[in-house]
Amino acid sequence: MISPEVKEQFKAIVGDKWVLDRPAELYAYSYDATPMYQALPDAVVLPASTREVSGILQLADTHRIPVIPRGSGTNLAASAIPVHGGIVLNLNRMNQIHEIDTRNLTATVGPGVVTASLHQAVETLGLFYPPDPGSMRISTIGGNVSQGAGGMRGLKYGVTKDYVMGLEYVLPSGDILRCGGKNVKDVAGYDMTRLLVGSEGTLAVITEITLKLLPLPDTKRTLVAFYRNLVDAAKTVEAIIAAKIIPATIEFMDQGTMKVVDEFARLGLPLEMKSMLLIEQDGPAEVVDRDIERIAQMAKANGAAGVEVAGSPEEGAKLLTARRAALSALSRLKPTTILEDATVPRSRLADMVEEVERIADRYGLQICTFGHAGDGNLHPTCMTDERNREEIERVERAFEEIFHAAIRLGGTITGEHGVGLAKKDFLHLKVGESGLELMRRIKAAFDPNGILNPGKMFAASKRRRWVVKR
Amino acid sequence: MISPEVKEQFKAIVGDKWVLDRPAELYAYSYDATPMYQALPDAVVLPASTREVSGILQLADTHRIPVIPRGSGTNLAASAIPVHGGIVLNLNRMNQIHEIDTRNLTATVGPGVVTASLHQAVETLGLFYPPDPGSMRISTIGGNVSQGAGGMRGLKYGVTKDYVMGLEYVLPSGDILRCGGKNVKDVAGYDMTRLLVGSEGTLAVITEITLKLLPLPDTKRTLVAFYRNLVDAAKTVEAIIAAKIIPATIEFMDQGTMKVVDEFARLGLPLEMKSMLLIEQDGPAEVVDRDIERIAQMAKANGAAGVEVAGSPEEGAKLLTARRAALSALSRLKPTTILEDATVPRSRLADMVEEVERIADRYGLQICTFGHAGDGNLHPTCMTDERNREEIERVERAFEEIFHAAIRLGGTITGEHGVGLAKKDFLHLKVGESGLELMRRIKAAFDPNGILNPGKMFAASKRRRWVVKR
Repeated sequence: MISPEVKEQFKAIVGDKWVLDRPAELYAYSYDATPMYQALPDAVVLPASTREVSGILQLADTHRIPVIPRGSGTNLAASAIPVHGGIVLNLNRMNQIHEIDTRNLTATVGPGVVTASLHQAVETLGLFYPPDPGSMRISTIGGNVSQGAGGMRGLKYGVTKDYVMGLEYVLPSGDILRCGGKNVKDVAGYDMTRLLVGSEGTLAVITEITLKLLPLPDTKRTLVAFYRNLVDAAKTVEAIIAAKIIPATIEFMDQGTMKVVDEFARLGLPLEMKSMLLIEQDGPAEVVDRDIERIAQMAKANGAAGVEVAGSPEEGAKLLTARRAALSALSRLKPTTILEDATVPRSRLADMVEEVERIADRYGLQICTFGHAGDGNLHPTCMTDERNREEIERVERAFEEIFHAAIRLGGTITGEHGVGLAKKDFLHLKVGESGLELMRRIKAAFDPNGILNPGKMFAASKRRRWVVKR
Repeated sequence: MISPEVKEQFKAIVGDKWVLDRPAELYAYSYDATPMYQALPDAVVLPASTREVSGILQLADTHRIPVIPRGSGTNLAASAIPVHGGIVLNLNRMNQIHEIDTRNLTATVGPGVVTASLHQAVETLGLFYPPDPGSMRISTIGGNVSQGAGGMRGLKYGVTKDYVMGLEYVLPSGDILRCGGKNVKDVAGYDMTRLLVGSEGTLAVITEITLKLLPLPDTKRTLVAFYRNLVDAAKTVEAIIAAKIIPATIEFMDQGTMKVVDEFARLGLPLEMKSMLLIEQDGPAEVVDRDIERIAQMAKANGAAGVEVAGSPEEGAKLLTARRAALSALSRLKPTTILEDATVPRSRLADMVEEVERIADRYGLQICTFGHAGDGNLHPTCMTDERNREEIERVERAFEEIFHAAIRLGGTITGEHGVGLAKKDFLHLKVGESGLELMRRIKAAFDPNGILNPGKMFAASKRRRWVVKR
């Protein structure tokens, strides 16, 4: 609970209308895109400037009030749930594109800028910001940076962390700091920039972001390949990499995902097939043409039952949009859709998909798998119903096995969604108990009173798989 | 001082012959490649395995003995000087290439692997490890990672930090940890991998490194352009980027550097010119040909007095080798050569070169400037004589002004060499006092007793610009 006096002080910082505390408002900030996690904040505060963020943090730190930084709330790890109450710090008013620097190929933006609007802004200048998380039409750059968001172009272009060059950030003390900047090379001290990327709001509040841009590729082309089994799809991916071709995107869908995506987007996919690959290459036209032709040959040579090259950029875009709709499409099937993010080295892709199928069978669950085959980042997605306690119990056990399988195959518990609440009980599998302890000490170096997004990532807690407060 | 009993314990861990403490041996480890810094260690210990490193660290931590991890000692920031005594931990025996994984495009190596030998090993498989620090024929991967080394391909390919995917590391407690791995996407907890890259041995001892590889580009071509002034060279660089071409390398040399390089390598450069650019592009043949032709046109359009395209790969390689020899060539002129590493955003390149010229004039010093024009990373290099106390005093003041100028232009005090002892009194210019304080707290989270490479980077100390102990 926040006392009326302190609430007045928050209002004095941001203005009356930017402190929300009516029940409907609190309810709207009690969840993010992760199913089955919910908790009410005590207030929502919407600052308009770094100075206001500094004032808010100082005040919250003094009174030991939890602060949960948040963008559009599209995250899938329950990282934005105010599980210990306190204030949700909505940064969406700080949504200015401050500068697109065409000489240094950088963009400097507020954390509230929507990802797709940055794409648009830079593309009109012939520039390119590659990270394209699934939620890019809604998600904010601040959220992308905080969660270390990925997307479909990870294989060739890397992910959000590879594009963050500099940050302005505010500590709980209210201190405003900067790290990195526009320099391609910079080794002055520890790499605070990269430490903050993916820290899920537990270390500092990010108030300005300088991103690296690339020249926009001249052209792109898309192909799809359909397979009667899983292994041949994986073998095709292997063959492409072995041929030293790095496509912009290699997406994978299993039969279950193909069915719902086809029903949703009316693509006319051959639904008797067991899996498909969706491959995009971009770059200079002659290189793209050559790569696409070779990829088509390799798909056939590795057992594809059908290969189609998109006839036009529009057709290619339609296919990619359909793939992006996989989560939405799957979520129409059942009341609750739990999307996971287990990731393995590319060479273990087929093994992992098969593991997921075995586990789903064993627990009698409907799990579809799609994801980024080029970078081994899979999204096993379970269609269930949270009101069915017995089934949810099986879902929990199945995902626990999936995480263990990913680790056993040299993978990780999360490729691009983050740890948040949803995976905090599994982080030790990847980083070990010593690693957890070290992260807690780093957290304390930034946030000695533990006010920033408490309870997330590695917070010591008794085992509590799901926090459902309804 | 290390007691005879403790020395015996070190010998019990690594074997008698791998603990060195004769005066000539200690002397050999009293310096690195940075002029004017020297201090004797109490012993040198050469472990052969992670387990041995763990034992050494535990023992050193118990007895509060400083540990200075070291590779080949090519660093230029005095990061490997045992300024508080203790043991130099030479990791060069851990020089195995454990694996080159052609399916996942990774290499896993010990810290003692020499950079150029990794280049060779992966290139025979058609793969590519882009980071190419100037000292690559001598430097080790462990040293490159610890210093965050750069090189000539930073503009297009990034630097060492962009290729480190996973690490095994040992804490002073002796705990052996792992972070990252072979997954292209991985957001499980804080990005410890990147925090350790560039940490200069102050946080942990790195015992194994997993690196990202790329397909080896099909071909490369080189051109040189000569200018009657500085501004036109900088304008050419701007024009290339504005045309959305990202060459693999854009190197800059001023007239002074051209003269000594020409004398050293007998290239027949037009020495009446004020500056030159050396540009390499790599990739598919048709793209390289087109880019090189357009770059040649842009150089001419922006005032180049002469443009020459290398007729063969051998001729191109000869030009790049000559540029790599710049430091060696310059160091023949005077007894002491101090190479700096000031870096600015690419758009401020000409401003920075002019600043350096003005500062050199004002202090009556001979400073040549060369460096990586594509990424704004310059190496103003002063030819002096450390025995001339009065001149050294001027050198100090000049470099201090150069650092201030870099910061004023939005740059940084070090692009690729690190902070070490040489720049620790200037780090606050870039990261601020709060940033320094935060880094000290992070250091304490890893190394509570402060045994790892003490005195470096941000160590609180009274102002002490040069530590010369001879």
